[in-house]
Amino acid sequence: MISFTCDYSEGAHPLILKRLADTNLVQEPGYGFDSFSESAREKIRSAIGIPDADVFFLVGGTQTNATVIDSLLKGFEGVMAVQTGHIAVHESGAIEFSGHKVLTLPSHEGKMDAGDLEAYLERFYADGAWEHMVIPGMVYLSFPTEYGTLYSKEELTRIRIVCQKYSLPLFVDGARLGYGLASDACDLTLPELAQLSDAFYIGGTKVGALCGEAVVFPRKAPAHFFTTVKQHGALLAKGRLTGIQFDTLFTDGLYMKIARNAIERAMEVKRVFADLGIPFFIDSPTNQQFPILTKEQMDSLEGKVLYEVWETLPDGRAVTRFATSWATTPEQIEQLKNYCMH
Amino acid sequence: MISFTCDYSEGAHPLILKRLADTNLVQEPGYGFDSFSESAREKIRSAIGIPDADVFFLVGGTQTNATVIDSLLKGFEGVMAVQTGHIAVHESGAIEFSGHKVLTLPSHEGKMDAGDLEAYLERFYADGAWEHMVIPGMVYLSFPTEYGTLYSKEELTRIRIVCQKYSLPLFVDGARLGYGLASDACDLTLPELAQLSDAFYIGGTKVGALCGEAVVFPRKAPAHFFTTVKQHGALLAKGRLTGIQFDTLFTDGLYMKIARNAIERAMEVKRVFADLGIPFFIDSPTNQQFPILTKEQMDSLEGKVLYEVWETLPDGRAVTRFATSWATTPEQIEQLKNYCMH
Amino acid sequence: MISFTCDYSEGAHPLILKRLADTNLVQEPGYGFDSFSESAREKIRSAIGIPDADVFFLVGGTQTNATVIDSLLKGFEGVMAVQTGHIAVHESGAIEFSGHKVLTLPSHEGKMDAGDLEAYLERFYADGAWEHMVIPGMVYLSFPTEYGTLYSKEELTRIRIVCQKYSLPLFVDGARLGYGLASDACDLTLPELAQLSDAFYIGGTKVGALCGEAVVFPRKAPAHFFTTVKQHGALLAKGRLTGIQFDTLFTDGLYMKIARNAIERAMEVKRVFADLGIPFFIDSPTNQQFPILTKEQMDSLEGKVLYEVWETLPDGRAVTRFATSWATTPEQIEQLKNYCMH
Amino acid sequence: MISFTCDYSEGAHPLILKRLADTNLVQEPGYGFDSFSESAREKIRSAIGIPDADVFFLVGGTQTNATVIDSLLKGFEGVMAVQTGHIAVHESGAIEFSGHKVLTLPSHEGKMDAGDLEAYLERFYADGAWEHMVIPGMVYLSFPTEYGTLYSKEELTRIRIVCQKYSLPLFVDGARLGYGLASDACDLTLPELAQLSDAFYIGGTKVGALCGEAVVFPRKAPAHFFTTVKQHGALLAKGRLTGIQFDTLFTDGLYMKIARNAIERAMEVKRVFADLGIPFFIDSPTNQQFPILTKEQMDSLEGKVLYEVWETLPDGRAVTRFATSWATTPEQIEQLKNYCMH
Repeated sequence: MISFTCDYSEGAHPLILKRLADTNLVQEPGYGFDSFSESAREKIRSAIGIPDADVFFLVGGTQTNATVIDSLLKGFEGVMAVQTGHIAVHESGAIEFSGHKVLTLPSHEGKMDAGDLEAYLERFYADGAWEHMVIPGMVYLSFPTEYGTLYSKEELTRIRIVCQKYSLPLFVDGARLGYGLASDACDLTLPELAQLSDAFYIGGTKVGALCGEAVVFPRKAPAHFFTTVKQHGALLAKGRLTGIQFDTLFTDGLYMKIARNAIERAMEVKRVFADLGIPFFIDSPTNQQFPILTKEQMDSLEGKVLYEVWETLPDGRAVTRFATSWATTPEQIEQLKNYCMH
Repeated sequence: MISFTCDYSEGAHPLILKRLADTNLVQEPGYGFDSFSESAREKIRSAIGIPDADVFFLVGGTQTNATVIDSLLKGFEGVMAVQTGHIAVHESGAIEFSGHKVLTLPSHEGKMDAGDLEAYLERFYADGAWEHMVIPGMVYLSFPTEYGTLYSKEELTRIRIVCQKYSLPLFVDGARLGYGLASDACDLTLPELAQLSDAFYIGGTKVGALCGEAVVFPRKAPAHFFTTVKQHGALLAKGRLTGIQFDTLFTDGLYMKIARNAIERAMEVKRVFADLGIPFFIDSPTNQQFPILTKEQMDSLEGKVLYEVWETLPDGRAVTRFATSWATTPEQIEQLKNYCMH
Repeated sequence: MISFTCDYSEGAHPLILKRLADTNLVQEPGYGFDSFSESAREKIRSAIGIPDADVFFLVGGTQTNATVIDSLLKGFEGVMAVQTGHIAVHESGAIEFSGHKVLTLPSHEGKMDAGDLEAYLERFYADGAWEHMVIPGMVYLSFPTEYGTLYSKEELTRIRIVCQKYSLPLFVDGARLGYGLASDACDLTLPELAQLSDAFYIGGTKVGALCGEAVVFPRKAPAHFFTTVKQHGALLAKGRLTGIQFDTLFTDGLYMKIARNAIERAMEVKRVFADLGIPFFIDSPTNQQFPILTKEQMDSLEGKVLYEVWETLPDGRAVTRFATSWATTPEQIEQLKNYCMH
Repeated sequence: MISFTCDYSEGAHPLILKRLADTNLVQEPGYGFDSFSESAREKIRSAIGIPDADVFFLVGGTQTNATVIDSLLKGFEGVMAVQTGHIAVHESGAIEFSGHKVLTLPSHEGKMDAGDLEAYLERFYADGAWEHMVIPGMVYLSFPTEYGTLYSKEELTRIRIVCQKYSLPLFVDGARLGYGLASDACDLTLPELAQLSDAFYIGGTKVGALCGEAVVFPRKAPAHFFTTVKQHGALLAKGRLTGIQFDTLFTDGLYMKIARNAIERAMEVKRVFADLGIPFFIDSPTNQQFPILTKEQMDSLEGKVLYEVWETLPDGRAVTRFATSWATTPEQIEQLKNYCMH
């Protein structure tokens, strides 16, 4: 049985495991002060083209979102996101747990619209009761989104302009950042993304690492961010674990190379379904594909291929998700094709 | 240079790395539903002798303490701990972040005294203003303590009896559990510890793993603990990472074997200092040793051996900490001995 | 100038002020243990027909909502409300401040629909990812709603049935409870409301008191609710202040009598506008009326009458709110009529 | 029976009740935008000699402490207080509820010592692990303290200097401020106190009001403090209630006049006990007196006088508290004297 359930079904890129083994008995300080983490930070600074950016390594996505958002908001502020944003739906209320409301905007195939954002803010401050409401304190968006879609440079720039007008930091959730940047549909580079955001993270867990997300503050981290990380239970004693992984991922362009593999395989998945005339819920240019399958089509894959069912439609068909990753092989696509055609 | 700074200076036990490599491309579900985690849970249940205990894998100590404590307390309750307890001092207020006060008792070489606990609770409920105070909701203690000391079975049983009298769950922080159980001074077994506590964790990060703590609820986990873990940002997408590590540690008694290595090396460290007539701050039977060094002694180790300075005494001497671990070798002790004698 | 801006423009019913003066120098214990509070609790228990109901007096609406909701939810749970619910919009995130998410349903003229609620809950537990989401822990609704509308006994009963099916406590925000119960359109009695809810409050601030809300747990208050009140900063040292007020309001049916005055005046307001052919945003049977005024109509009231503008419509007209209260006089209605007709 | 149990046993100063009645039907805006509140703010600014100070009215002490402290701290910071401070003991964890730890220093008859404070801060930043601890973000003290004692101008100035050295805002809990300022032992004026602190409150509840505390930010309130007040459930809809009270208390020096009454009566209480050779737990110059009574002495007062028992001593005697207030009359002291002498 092959699985396209998600992009975290395997372990880590073999080079990471090798590096962990090679360095295993080197004694290093804890909490991110090890030489591997320092080297990884340097490589990331170089990759984004900002020599004095602040970089921290956290363990997972929800943790990273909760910690970064809490560090950027004042106590009375909330974070703006689209209704389908990960923080609004699938984090068990981790943001509210830290005392902040998620203020939602409509989702356009997973994306926030700069016009919606500006209209919300205008309406908010025009409302006589705004001081009785949650004050918007920052903007959160995902790149790519939870639906695999991408912001164009222009779209992101327009959001940034609204953010600046209202002095709102812009935070980009890059749990699948590599899969966005490696897409043919992406007109943004990593340095451009860094320039456009006040904080973002480079997802490791879904792009080749065992765990780990690299948080980048292109300008400056909030005061005492280290302590906030600790307070959120997000500080690794063996910081080398994330340091080594990101150092490896940012050596010789490995991160983008393996992200590109996922995109190529995803486009093959797309072709498999398209060639069979199967429609898609969304035209995704990244590693998540959303074919709409009939009951019969799903039955025929039963026991052979794993994938996620996102939503059952009134007519009995289902929106499904097939995710590729750094680990997906051409052979697996070939298998999928065979299963689908018989 | 050799380091006795802490017990998380190296990576992981080689068998863990090998196992990670061997299983790397096996596709498994996320979030702890993988077969490795299930196997590890079974082995832990077997090791504690409670076939239906609930077991969860989290990433680090502070995170585990904050998540478990929050899951066991009602909103208006606080957690009791000694003043030197990790949660009271070195977690950047992670417990308060989740809304709960840490109520402190005197520390006796790092340990809580059952008499102190009972006296506190009696005084509390005798105080006419108790409803205006934070209501004690559970008891936290570390085994071994932050000072390397151990509770005897009798001491722990007495605490347990007070807890039961006041219906307070007892939670044992086992960040260094192996190093406690493997000590010659320990008269408790793992199954006995499980019987005496309502929740405890088996520390992995400091005992051979890259990261990971196994939380055990010998009777039953609080409702929806999985969701609480997610809410705290403590849920690993690749649960296999902790699953594989604990499955390895609980195969063929590896966890206790490597813990025993740390104890043997620690006793050798103790002998090195004792033979030189150097006094100790505390007579620790576990992997942390606290020799009191003079300025001259420290100078002579400069550039050769790393260790922690805990406290400078009025007379200029310093309480230091030398920690051994699963990775400490007889050769390193030999080196330390040579450095100390010259 | 007369004001219909809100129902808290004046002080308190004169009988309350008289009672405060008459009892002023009687020495009483603090924190709600005074004899006035005890008497008020007895009268409220009698009014709802539940002799052993738990009754507490808090100071204001947002405070009451935040305290009661926090006391009814477990840490990982959220509260369900309609999108226009006070807790979802106008409490500056007080619910999120206590760590809980407000889960929203569509608003039907301010009301929750039992069908929407049930559909949400069914969909929720059918979603494979529900454990990664905020678990619904209770239901919040306002009676009357923020739009002045009322639930019929049948509507509320249907919601209650869904709540019971999913073991969700039902909490009724009665900031304007009197104005709901006194409406001709209301087919519910106070004892019936008490039977249908697990917690509700009888609003004082908007119905004749200087401040104060009476929280009723018809069955049983959550454990240590007193301490939760204190923890939320909601405990009055001089509990007599709310005790005396509610004791007065629940003597000789004063609460319902003065609520009835507001309703009669509100119906007169309605007639004033209706007679002029002015349309309403919502057909409200309670003390808040929502005429839609043109720019010219608003200009003509300028400097004579105060009211709230809720929303400007695309055509330039505005949805306005005129609120009556226990203090509104027939003379004030007469004045409004004169201003409107000239 | 007469009661010296506390300083909130009666209602309000009669002038306040009169003023509430006189203004009762004047229509005013809510939430502190009424003319009474504005007038009160002006009078307080004038009394402290700072024309542009920010002034807000909250309802009670615990609420005020929690709201002000939360508004002054960043998420990762804690508040420093002595171990006997109200926030550390008798607020049911309201500070921790908002996510912040109370960091405690030794109490010297209820007071903080500037030397202790400085030593703590020096030790803190000298500790290699300080980033793993809660970072001190402000200093809290009570004037008078919970034990009725007062800081001299010099003592407070020394604390202020340490605060400035470490950029820590100084917040003074003035629940009984009047009783401190009116004491013969006080060498501080209200304007001096305002200059020495970054935030303080003028207690109303215990000094003649039904409820209410006036929060003063002599320099500037934290951004959006109004919204923080709302978020904490601390915003009164009928802000007139506190506005009228403080406007009355700050007209013709009423606040200090009635505070002085409490002090004179307290000194008479002191004399009653001293003349009988009864010792005191603390030599308090304010409205709380702490005679140490024998079992027989307490028996003889049984059924005649109410007071608080603070602590039972090993020899069976009890530390008791007798509190006077604005409402205590010479006749009540006479009665106490008679009861004590027979």
